[in-house]
Amino acid sequence: MEVFEKWESEIRGYSRTYPTVFASASNARQVDEHGRSYVDFFAGAGVLNLGHNNPRMKRAMIAFLEADGVAHSLDMATTTKRDFIEKFVATVLVPRGMTMKLQFMGPTGSNAVEAALKLARKVTGRREVVAFSHGFHGMTLGSLALTGNEFFRAAAGVPLENVVRLPFETAPGGGIQALADYRALLADVSGGLAPPAAFVVETVQAEGGVNVASAPWLRAVQELARDVGALFVIDEIQVGCGRTGSYFSFDGMGLDPDVVCLAKGIGGYGTPLAMNLVRPEHDAHWLPGEHTGTFRGQGLSFVAGREALTYFEDDVLLTEVRAKGERMASALRALAQEAGEDRGFAVRGRGMIQGLDVGDGSLAKAVVAESFARGLLVGACGSGGRVLKLIPPLTIPDDDLAEGLEILREAVHESL
Amino acid sequence: MEVFEKWESEIRGYSRTYPTVFASASNARQVDEHGRSYVDFFAGAGVLNLGHNNPRMKRAMIAFLEADGVAHSLDMATTTKRDFIEKFVATVLVPRGMTMKLQFMGPTGSNAVEAALKLARKVTGRREVVAFSHGFHGMTLGSLALTGNEFFRAAAGVPLENVVRLPFETAPGGGIQALADYRALLADVSGGLAPPAAFVVETVQAEGGVNVASAPWLRAVQELARDVGALFVIDEIQVGCGRTGSYFSFDGMGLDPDVVCLAKGIGGYGTPLAMNLVRPEHDAHWLPGEHTGTFRGQGLSFVAGREALTYFEDDVLLTEVRAKGERMASALRALAQEAGEDRGFAVRGRGMIQGLDVGDGSLAKAVVAESFARGLLVGACGSGGRVLKLIPPLTIPDDDLAEGLEILREAVHESL
Amino acid sequence: MEVFEKWESEIRGYSRTYPTVFASASNARQVDEHGRSYVDFFAGAGVLNLGHNNPRMKRAMIAFLEADGVAHSLDMATTTKRDFIEKFVATVLVPRGMTMKLQFMGPTGSNAVEAALKLARKVTGRREVVAFSHGFHGMTLGSLALTGNEFFRAAAGVPLENVVRLPFETAPGGGIQALADYRALLADVSGGLAPPAAFVVETVQAEGGVNVASAPWLRAVQELARDVGALFVIDEIQVGCGRTGSYFSFDGMGLDPDVVCLAKGIGGYGTPLAMNLVRPEHDAHWLPGEHTGTFRGQGLSFVAGREALTYFEDDVLLTEVRAKGERMASALRALAQEAGEDRGFAVRGRGMIQGLDVGDGSLAKAVVAESFARGLLVGACGSGGRVLKLIPPLTIPDDDLAEGLEILREAVHESL
Amino acid sequence: MEVFEKWESEIRGYSRTYPTVFASASNARQVDEHGRSYVDFFAGAGVLNLGHNNPRMKRAMIAFLEADGVAHSLDMATTTKRDFIEKFVATVLVPRGMTMKLQFMGPTGSNAVEAALKLARKVTGRREVVAFSHGFHGMTLGSLALTGNEFFRAAAGVPLENVVRLPFETAPGGGIQALADYRALLADVSGGLAPPAAFVVETVQAEGGVNVASAPWLRAVQELARDVGALFVIDEIQVGCGRTGSYFSFDGMGLDPDVVCLAKGIGGYGTPLAMNLVRPEHDAHWLPGEHTGTFRGQGLSFVAGREALTYFEDDVLLTEVRAKGERMASALRALAQEAGEDRGFAVRGRGMIQGLDVGDGSLAKAVVAESFARGLLVGACGSGGRVLKLIPPLTIPDDDLAEGLEILREAVHESL
Repeated sequence: MEVFEKWESEIRGYSRTYPTVFASASNARQVDEHGRSYVDFFAGAGVLNLGHNNPRMKRAMIAFLEADGVAHSLDMATTTKRDFIEKFVATVLVPRGMTMKLQFMGPTGSNAVEAALKLARKVTGRREVVAFSHGFHGMTLGSLALTGNEFFRAAAGVPLENVVRLPFETAPGGGIQALADYRALLADVSGGLAPPAAFVVETVQAEGGVNVASAPWLRAVQELARDVGALFVIDEIQVGCGRTGSYFSFDGMGLDPDVVCLAKGIGGYGTPLAMNLVRPEHDAHWLPGEHTGTFRGQGLSFVAGREALTYFEDDVLLTEVRAKGERMASALRALAQEAGEDRGFAVRGRGMIQGLDVGDGSLAKAVVAESFARGLLVGACGSGGRVLKLIPPLTIPDDDLAEGLEILREAVHESL
Repeated sequence: MEVFEKWESEIRGYSRTYPTVFASASNARQVDEHGRSYVDFFAGAGVLNLGHNNPRMKRAMIAFLEADGVAHSLDMATTTKRDFIEKFVATVLVPRGMTMKLQFMGPTGSNAVEAALKLARKVTGRREVVAFSHGFHGMTLGSLALTGNEFFRAAAGVPLENVVRLPFETAPGGGIQALADYRALLADVSGGLAPPAAFVVETVQAEGGVNVASAPWLRAVQELARDVGALFVIDEIQVGCGRTGSYFSFDGMGLDPDVVCLAKGIGGYGTPLAMNLVRPEHDAHWLPGEHTGTFRGQGLSFVAGREALTYFEDDVLLTEVRAKGERMASALRALAQEAGEDRGFAVRGRGMIQGLDVGDGSLAKAVVAESFARGLLVGACGSGGRVLKLIPPLTIPDDDLAEGLEILREAVHESL
Repeated sequence: MEVFEKWESEIRGYSRTYPTVFASASNARQVDEHGRSYVDFFAGAGVLNLGHNNPRMKRAMIAFLEADGVAHSLDMATTTKRDFIEKFVATVLVPRGMTMKLQFMGPTGSNAVEAALKLARKVTGRREVVAFSHGFHGMTLGSLALTGNEFFRAAAGVPLENVVRLPFETAPGGGIQALADYRALLADVSGGLAPPAAFVVETVQAEGGVNVASAPWLRAVQELARDVGALFVIDEIQVGCGRTGSYFSFDGMGLDPDVVCLAKGIGGYGTPLAMNLVRPEHDAHWLPGEHTGTFRGQGLSFVAGREALTYFEDDVLLTEVRAKGERMASALRALAQEAGEDRGFAVRGRGMIQGLDVGDGSLAKAVVAESFARGLLVGACGSGGRVLKLIPPLTIPDDDLAEGLEILREAVHESL
Repeated sequence: MEVFEKWESEIRGYSRTYPTVFASASNARQVDEHGRSYVDFFAGAGVLNLGHNNPRMKRAMIAFLEADGVAHSLDMATTTKRDFIEKFVATVLVPRGMTMKLQFMGPTGSNAVEAALKLARKVTGRREVVAFSHGFHGMTLGSLALTGNEFFRAAAGVPLENVVRLPFETAPGGGIQALADYRALLADVSGGLAPPAAFVVETVQAEGGVNVASAPWLRAVQELARDVGALFVIDEIQVGCGRTGSYFSFDGMGLDPDVVCLAKGIGGYGTPLAMNLVRPEHDAHWLPGEHTGTFRGQGLSFVAGREALTYFEDDVLLTEVRAKGERMASALRALAQEAGEDRGFAVRGRGMIQGLDVGDGSLAKAVVAESFARGLLVGACGSGGRVLKLIPPLTIPDDDLAEGLEILREAVHESL
């Protein structure tokens, strides 16, 4: 670790939370250089839906490398990119009757959100964007303005403008009525509010504390957006690509977003990729090259991402996700009951993103440390870091899942 | 191409400029699916300093994949990351007596600049940043505010604030005197200027038109920054990593920047990576996790990037770069003379970034198209796209270089 | 009128609403150059609490002029200013046990609000200010940002920043619960809200539509401000100085504001004057000369304003105000019942500011025009101008009041 | 003075500089309550061009009061306002062939500037405005953004946006070439500058240090504005109305501004009035009531202001102004030579605004105090307050002028 302490920036975080040097990884396991193996309930911040070093992807990537495929192409056309697009269209869009355009940009979620903001502002000619309390949308100046967390916001060093903050459904003052009130004020010429360019929302706020929005509320947000002439943007970066038990977290909710932001899991192997789905009538507002990014044509990400999509050709994986998610939720509920009685522990989640809100950041921090000591990687999120967030690979073997849940149980008890 | 036209966003750019589907690539060649081979004077926007699919990197990456190295780690410590850091320190920092800290972030140049801006504002408690005309620093809201190009700026849809614009050395009103005037106005309490947090500068403005700053001017910028309590930030994203004939473009200029932003070439294979070098006294202002990014721990980029660093263990490659750069400049000067007489063609550049300013964007566009038709990939940059920018891989074989220069010559003549 | 049409700016407004040339005025009457006399329910936008050309003030002003008193002094000390200050202290502050400092500035309400904003931001080191829907606080850039009316806001031509908008008590979503929700979100580090520098509120929104806040809600705003470290600022510009039946509109409500903004009526004769009352501990943050204004030392305004204060030495006038206010409200309620049945007319007000909300701006406009034709000056306010606002001089004779109310009754019937 | 110390805000300034209580005033004299008479070289910050309590104005005002003229009318038409407009048109506009519209607003210079900014942004659809170093344009948020003085700017507590700062002609880097450089950068699509809505300039910067612009430079500013589609706005607030020896300070310079901002002297007696002159084609962009202000219809100001205009019916006063101005300049030059040798004293000015730059704020402060002690009111301006600014009433008797200049001479010698 000395190398990191000596040469890496003080900003490093996870290497403090998990103070060891990892040497290899496989599915839901990371192994450090001393050979210690950890169950991984963190999955690279939700990126590794199909596990570390997924063997099908690995084979495809090696073959691609050996064949001198175009590894880096900006937005030139390549055979590999075409394969990815065709697979995405066939697997995801066509079955849903979606006709959205695929936009590639710098391969980070933040960049996807920045592009969505630009487009929404272009399409509407408006400036302000509605974001919700507890939302997390990225760390660059545009996306950071949407992000709720004060710690991140304070680092900007400049005012974060052009955002109107509404409470998320589950926050104080949140819900359908709050949307109706906002609508009424917006309709009043003396309300003092400007009509927004977009509403940007996560269906499940992952960093924000595993806050789960209901379908009716999301539909109300969409309807409000439509009625006031704003774009309805779903930030699907952390909970898309199967995490919640369906490919999109909003599948089956009667939603029809204008823009869907994808990143993290879409590149499959942890290989960077970001992609927005954009309704064609909005996409037509883009001029060629108006939002660029050097790494928007990643051959390895297209290869791995294409392979990842094969997991969604049928419902096998997603059925498992729902089952494992239920197992996780049950375990957490039991834990909340046995350990959290009188402490107000709460369990929230959908599919394989489940959170245990222990009500207090220092307790959560102790549990994370104790879990690590016992061989489990798990992270905290939410206000003050008080929610333990479980986002293991969707492909985690049952044994690893059980082991991880047991370690967590012990760590919680140990930390009380 | 139909797949792209049907499904990819209207924003796609290079697939219009180079309207074919590429299937493979090797060093300074890209080959399309019809088997047509192109000399590549574009190199993935300056990323592929060591060529497409560099065989040493390729071998290392395949070995890493086969060994289940940690492909995606955020900022956890990994053996692979440690290897990269150690190599960078040994090859780049130690020989220069530099003690800067390495900060990793979302793997785009834009993200590196956003992080530098946050830090400069934190360190100084100031808000405004000096950027120069014709600069290009990225497309997210913070870095876009620094970028000079109106086409990109207009897409923001919101005011781009907190930036003071000064003319670059080679722009109207630019030079040492302009810096002195700015200094004097800043010193005057009625000057109406706020003291800046940072000066962010490229030593060679690549996108801005291959505008080359002199060492004395850069030293004057640095001195001004020091004297007014601002950070001196070099955006080395496009011209670092050997492009100009030295590892850093500012080597040997008597400069000592506070922050150096690296991306593009640092990841070696086109694999995304961004990294800031930060003086320790500034780095100490970061709190853990204050600026994050999901893809800030890319195993493949560390492996390829480490391999790339081996090319800078001795002066062999850089000697070649200087020689080839001179060959490119000679060829362009000859071309400017024979074709550009009375047209005011200008040649500018350092090392293997060379520009031919043909004075007019539509002429440059015609040359790009004609070059493509004749088997050469070259791009345009500068105001209105009037500068042909030559940034081939540093490893381009002599024959390919000669062939590319000859194609360009023909294309220019054809386009007049 | 041709002179005005030919030479005065297109921006002129009231000369279109009341298309005649006025030649003289006295108490609650204006007389045009053709000798036509109008009952004045508008009173110079609420400035002329003690009537046009109040004879006591007039005598004092003429004496002052004849004695060569200092008419214009910036913030030099003058005997006249001292007389005003002493009178204000003795009549207003001492009886209430208030120890606030008197700050003079450019003689407009907008300037008073701008000064209050600067001070609140200085004292707290914060940037954002809470303003309420339907609020009106002025037309300069800082105060305009607080103002709710979209017509006025749109004229800014730049984003109006640094303001958080909450619904006024009587607006959709307004009330005590909305304050509690805002408080909760503010307390949550992921709420995405910055702590505010101030809450700026009118007790009765005059321009906003004669919206009357309750004492409990105002106390909740004050308590919230205190608890979150913000200043509690009452904009008393239109409804202070006796308008509501007490000197301050907030008298007797258990409120203890940090800053009170006064203008309009404080200068007495329509002579410009603005003044903030500031708690000494906040006032101590001002540096000498930090917010200036050329016309902040108006001798005539001090003389007339001092004379105006004599009306508040006892309760005679205010008792009358309450009685006349009740008469106005009764008349409006009767009118609302007879004319507004099934039309949802609403009557709102306190003391001698009373509004008849006819639900529709074009109807209100017709009533204003018809009233003018019949010899009554009355204005419209509120969203879309749908509220007839009655703000006659507090000194209006009973006959004039009765006549005005009767004209209004007829005008409403005529306009239906 | 105790009343002021006890009850008036800490922000008070001039009552500290001139620590006495004034009781009366006449032409160029102020007399304190102890009967001490002071020569006034300050004239209410340049407001009282025609002296304190000008007898012709006083008579007119008393007559107006006695006749119950409409003292306060917002923008209703009144006979008094018509008289003022007709007089202004006949005396000022017609002889110059000007056809500008007269816009009235809140009666402060700051308000006039705010209105000009709104209009320029409306007309052009642009956001940024060019202001010059050392400019002073007011204290409300919009005008303050134009003002150069850091002390005033810092009090805003929020970023001052939407302004581009260029050096004034006489500042470091200022002059015709700087305008040409700015023009070139603006014309370059990668210059990073947005086209401005307006250029706002003073012909003589009064608060900024009595900096005098040349006619050629002002014409270059105007030409630049025209060429880039921006409005050319002259802020004539402090040096208009005869101060420089012509009615407008820009008379005879070949200038044809789009907007002229007037305040201070236009109201004559120190009675507040502000007025913009606006070219009709721009004025047509205003909607009725888009920028309002309660005190925009001041009967007393119209009466006094009309009387003031009679002084400009012939050249008698202005001839005197030029002569007295020359006398002032001579005296200052002599003083600079005798006292300022080797100290770099500088004399600057036009007509009856003359400045003695003593190079150092604390010296200037001492001179101001010493002058006061000896019976002269004079103020300091410029960066750090290092310039003694002489702006006596244009009607100052020769004896008073001579006495004041002699006191100043003694005070300077005493203070060295």
